[in-house]
Amino acid sequence: MNTSTLSPQIQTICSNAQTASKKLASSATIVRDLFLERFAENLLTASAEIIAANEIDIAAAKANGIRSSLLDRLTLTRERIAGIADAARQIIALPDPLGHGELSTRPNGLQIIKKTVPLGVIGFIYEARPNVTADAAALCVKSGNAVILRGGKEAINSNIAIANLARAALRSVGLPEDAVTLITDTTRQSTAELMNASGYIDALIPRGGAGLINAVSENSKVPVIQTGSGICHLYVDESADFDMAVSVAFNAKCSRPSVCNAIEQLLVHRSIAETFLPLVQVKLADKNVELRGDAETVRILNCRVAADEDWHTEFGDYILAVKCVSGIDEAIAHIDATGTGHSEAIITNDYARALEFTDQVNAAAVYVNASTRFTDGGEFGLGAEIGISTQKLHARGPMGLSALTSSKFVIMGNGQVR
Amino acid sequence: MNTSTLSPQIQTICSNAQTASKKLASSATIVRDLFLERFAENLLTASAEIIAANEIDIAAAKANGIRSSLLDRLTLTRERIAGIADAARQIIALPDPLGHGELSTRPNGLQIIKKTVPLGVIGFIYEARPNVTADAAALCVKSGNAVILRGGKEAINSNIAIANLARAALRSVGLPEDAVTLITDTTRQSTAELMNASGYIDALIPRGGAGLINAVSENSKVPVIQTGSGICHLYVDESADFDMAVSVAFNAKCSRPSVCNAIEQLLVHRSIAETFLPLVQVKLADKNVELRGDAETVRILNCRVAADEDWHTEFGDYILAVKCVSGIDEAIAHIDATGTGHSEAIITNDYARALEFTDQVNAAAVYVNASTRFTDGGEFGLGAEIGISTQKLHARGPMGLSALTSSKFVIMGNGQVR
Repeated sequence: MNTSTLSPQIQTICSNAQTASKKLASSATIVRDLFLERFAENLLTASAEIIAANEIDIAAAKANGIRSSLLDRLTLTRERIAGIADAARQIIALPDPLGHGELSTRPNGLQIIKKTVPLGVIGFIYEARPNVTADAAALCVKSGNAVILRGGKEAINSNIAIANLARAALRSVGLPEDAVTLITDTTRQSTAELMNASGYIDALIPRGGAGLINAVSENSKVPVIQTGSGICHLYVDESADFDMAVSVAFNAKCSRPSVCNAIEQLLVHRSIAETFLPLVQVKLADKNVELRGDAETVRILNCRVAADEDWHTEFGDYILAVKCVSGIDEAIAHIDATGTGHSEAIITNDYARALEFTDQVNAAAVYVNASTRFTDGGEFGLGAEIGISTQKLHARGPMGLSALTSSKFVIMGNGQVR
Repeated sequence: MNTSTLSPQIQTICSNAQTASKKLASSATIVRDLFLERFAENLLTASAEIIAANEIDIAAAKANGIRSSLLDRLTLTRERIAGIADAARQIIALPDPLGHGELSTRPNGLQIIKKTVPLGVIGFIYEARPNVTADAAALCVKSGNAVILRGGKEAINSNIAIANLARAALRSVGLPEDAVTLITDTTRQSTAELMNASGYIDALIPRGGAGLINAVSENSKVPVIQTGSGICHLYVDESADFDMAVSVAFNAKCSRPSVCNAIEQLLVHRSIAETFLPLVQVKLADKNVELRGDAETVRILNCRVAADEDWHTEFGDYILAVKCVSGIDEAIAHIDATGTGHSEAIITNDYARALEFTDQVNAAAVYVNASTRFTDGGEFGLGAEIGISTQKLHARGPMGLSALTSSKFVIMGNGQVR
């Protein structure tokens, strides 16, 4: 353990979380589910207190001139708190991911079970969204993990209120309250220390902008699961149904531009560009989407010219980069060069191209004739998610409860030697 | 991609491996299996050349005064090469881990498949064992991955010979030869560069001593799978069958002391120590095992006193640290404090203690009444293995072909929007 690099505060938090994780790992499903029910009740009962804490955060954020989209994510209302409580209750209904496995008996009589177990202690670094504090606590405890939460500084008062309710719920069912710990030091120092806490933290999950995720992935000594950065593309093939392509492009860009599964770039087969681009331009104008095109697109649509960095930017806004391509190979090469491995889609009626696209595109989710906006644990039928992994190791795509587990081989013998 | 930190040589190797990995990912099972057959044939046909290259390595190693156990691992004979070829052929019989998945259809008609795909490019850093070069090439190609091999410098000539045979086999079946690349720069610089090759290498697997594994885990910007470091314990409970405990202790220590699943420490319940320790001492004397005891053990056995570092050392030799404990809780705490999460065993006839041990011990493989020496892909029925993971993320325990895969969600729609 790199204890020498940790401050006494963080070391105590990590050590207590590790102790709590051991008790949690052997707790019964019904106790963890009861925690979820109590936590949901606490959230509802203490709505006024949460909102009071949230108002302090909002006032500070406004004083600091925070962007309106971020302010919206930060804001809690009685209705939103009810939604958060409901989300915790929905996790009760999900099957316990722990304690499963298949038995195999070897010729020498050894009985071997590969059993699902919790990861242990999860470090979770995220943006200023207080609902994520509750979701992460609920998912981690359900899957038998202790969690150390390091949320965005703008939400600190809201997060303290919510984390305290989770800790009270843990105590009320006899689970160790240190299974959920919020780090109140929201400087970069605390993030750096979590990255050094190997031996204590089993997995670090950063969620937020590409800058945070890359910094954590590159510098962490603790294993990392990357989530959330999404530069997603929609490729409209020459064989595409135009109505479908317009509808999917509009939905993928406009239904919620701030989220990671929204598209940032539209790629169009050159042979249909003259006809298709004006159609999609008209529809996107409904939401005043700003188009930034390559030279060919600009010639057709008379839109703004895309800068080099526009092909590597997650706009998170009503902005769309548009490029004409010579066909599926150029589209795939462009996705390879500019994508983040999140969600990619093709609109086509050509069977071979659908197959080529799904085989060749290197992403967590690859769509044919559907919107990238479906990349989500709920939409995929996994239940709630802690994030969307864009890496290949451990978990890829929406991460439900099973992504928060590991396994252990349990071998029962009667004296076997090798 | 951190291309700026890579030398032109390593960047070219990484880039070529990435291109090769894409072709390999869409190759048919039968072509990858045919590669394995040709590779096996090449190894047999070119045995004399491999041995000639190996003799150069052996001569240099002897001149440098290499340890005899390492010299043995380095040495290739006609018989051992036949064994390596046979291991490659056995992989043909294993099922293709790629292209599997279950279809689920969502209420909105979206058809979602979570499909197994290769990881992509695997970087493999290992000790001076030329057989591992062949095993890694065979396992990676079978699972559709390109591999960049960085073997120990003592085996460089043997490795070049074997890697060239793998590349010839790839060419002969129409697969890109860059699917298997050996790095011939065996300085620390090349290891450091592989750790920086994010964007090219999807997973880095270090295999060898604890020093290498820790250095790679802590400094790599590429995701790492830790393997192989094993400080394993056998705890003999007061209810143990003494004959079984002696037999398992002897096997776990002496059947192959240099491997990671051999035990380094014997923990004995205080109440049986006076009777049991002399029995196991007599048996271990058959192999002249050096015992290093805590104060209580030394009093009973009159053996050498264990130094502090002996409780944190993977001896890899006929040396065993021995400690008396007050019971299962102290045994588990000691394993927690000194183990590497590899393989741990209890000998007991007490049901509750067997359950407590398997539930509480935090290791990849936990045994009741059997030798830790069984932690092995073949013994567990997984087929060949590329290493034994001692981490919790992605894979834990012996890693067969499926540990070399990731997944991709493929979603087929007919115009769905959200």
